[in-house]
Amino acid sequence: MALSTAFTDLLGVPHPIVLAPMGGSAGGALAAAVSRGGGLGLVGAGTGDPGWLDRELTIVASNTDQPWGVGFLTWGVTLDAVERALAYRPRAVLFSFGDPSPFLAPVRRSGATVIVQVTTIDEARLAVGIGADVIVAQGTEAGGHGARHGRSTLPFVPAVVDLAGPVPVLAAGGIADGRGVAAALALGAAGALIGTRFQATVESLVDPRAAQAIVDGRGEDTVRNGVLDIVRGSAWPSRYTSRTLGHPHLDRWRGREDELPGNTEARQSYEDDKAAGVIPALPIWAGEAVDLVTDRPSAAELVARIAHDAESVLHRLVQPR
Amino acid sequence: MALSTAFTDLLGVPHPIVLAPMGGSAGGALAAAVSRGGGLGLVGAGTGDPGWLDRELTIVASNTDQPWGVGFLTWGVTLDAVERALAYRPRAVLFSFGDPSPFLAPVRRSGATVIVQVTTIDEARLAVGIGADVIVAQGTEAGGHGARHGRSTLPFVPAVVDLAGPVPVLAAGGIADGRGVAAALALGAAGALIGTRFQATVESLVDPRAAQAIVDGRGEDTVRNGVLDIVRGSAWPSRYTSRTLGHPHLDRWRGREDELPGNTEARQSYEDDKAAGVIPALPIWAGEAVDLVTDRPSAAELVARIAHDAESVLHRLVQPR
Repeated sequence: MALSTAFTDLLGVPHPIVLAPMGGSAGGALAAAVSRGGGLGLVGAGTGDPGWLDRELTIVASNTDQPWGVGFLTWGVTLDAVERALAYRPRAVLFSFGDPSPFLAPVRRSGATVIVQVTTIDEARLAVGIGADVIVAQGTEAGGHGARHGRSTLPFVPAVVDLAGPVPVLAAGGIADGRGVAAALALGAAGALIGTRFQATVESLVDPRAAQAIVDGRGEDTVRNGVLDIVRGSAWPSRYTSRTLGHPHLDRWRGREDELPGNTEARQSYEDDKAAGVIPALPIWAGEAVDLVTDRPSAAELVARIAHDAESVLHRLVQPR
Repeated sequence: MALSTAFTDLLGVPHPIVLAPMGGSAGGALAAAVSRGGGLGLVGAGTGDPGWLDRELTIVASNTDQPWGVGFLTWGVTLDAVERALAYRPRAVLFSFGDPSPFLAPVRRSGATVIVQVTTIDEARLAVGIGADVIVAQGTEAGGHGARHGRSTLPFVPAVVDLAGPVPVLAAGGIADGRGVAAALALGAAGALIGTRFQATVESLVDPRAAQAIVDGRGEDTVRNGVLDIVRGSAWPSRYTSRTLGHPHLDRWRGREDELPGNTEARQSYEDDKAAGVIPALPIWAGEAVDLVTDRPSAAELVARIAHDAESVLHRLVQPR
């Protein structure tokens, strides 16, 4: 019994489960563990810092012989960084948040699968147009960055599936267990991309206190906001916001985000609090599915558990009661 | 082959599909058609206008011999209205948006099933505490009214299921076809409550132009807003907002909602535009799943179609490929 889909066929992985390439937390060890567990591990390379890339891609390549991949932030990555990553022979390259057209040629030459993450129907149309091999439809309940005015996963995924035709679609946002993966497949997706859940694993690069906050956190404590990007001086374009757990500087600027750009005092106050240890070094990115995260297992075990639960859920539903 | 669940067992209906009791559009004819189709039709009685109640409940009771029910807005209904409805012998009574405790005794005496719709985990906990027979977990992608700061359906439903224990949970928000119902069941729900989709049916009480706008509308055109309640002088408490299609008065006040309360000019301008026929008589309430609404069938046929598609989706997923 296994949930094979157009995605598992295309990538040659046993389970339709993909690690979201979360910058900073999806390092080589986590990606390798997800791939060893039968999913597809994607290293979160962000804009592609060369030192980080070399270190983490060496780790992933030497810790699994299963397919793995790497994900970039399209708005900030360079062709150099993409080519640097391709030297490590990833099976797939995911581009999020922006038009990836300038980076596709070398990826295609390498034979890697092109995965494009989208947050709107227009972006999905663009992804189909440029010939994405796989499309990720990300809902606004996702942790970390996403569209400022996003869609919810449940109605967004089937709309993208209808548009994408034969191109396999992965559902992202709000999925943390076997029920969510089963629901994604029911919606017509060929798999699920999972982020927040994998932060609370032993292989994740997040600070153990952040992992514990995710285990303890509640969905209603998560807030999609642009505030924390501004006060920490992040390079993220303002059309993207991020869903995080609560934060003192979020409370301070709630409803007044438009007063923030260029506010040097707000920026300094954040740096001061960080230096004093009053706030964590980074916001804690978490999606609404944080309610469903209650432990911190190894990622390979977690993939197997999620896949098993998804299969059980679906088989139970079609059995006579 | 049929998708029987704890909900279909409890209510004695063939399909785990429930008509959302949309005030004004879910009248007796639509509720009766949904029940004849094998779902549970709920008449949308709002705050319980006696003349409307008598008319629509007479229609539903005389147009189906299958179980049907009625839904009220908890913040505005009276005990008189609830008792008036109970005289028509509904099989179920749904309460949305507020603490229904004051209204439960007569419903229980009548033998009707108590359904409570919730939008937050705290409300779900309250619903379990007061002994709701069925809980509806409504996500923010739903059309019409809901929590101002709501949750998305995909991660919210399993969190409510985990909390509700043996109490059957229905998923609401973002569901418009068989894939959505199948996903709801995969999430652990015992069925789905569907609104927007049923507005585009021949039995719906909405203006045909509104039904056409729903057929034509796109999910990204829907906006959760408090603006249209304020400018039309609605009695809805401000802690609830509604998701509607675009509207000229929404554009006018975007980002300036806090200037609206008590603004008599805004209110007069809306009334003037309504009188002149420049804007429709009512906002067009629509959820994000409007993307999936492409025709205007009869509601009984639609229930059968959705149920069939949900079953097919689930069976296909567990078949070897």
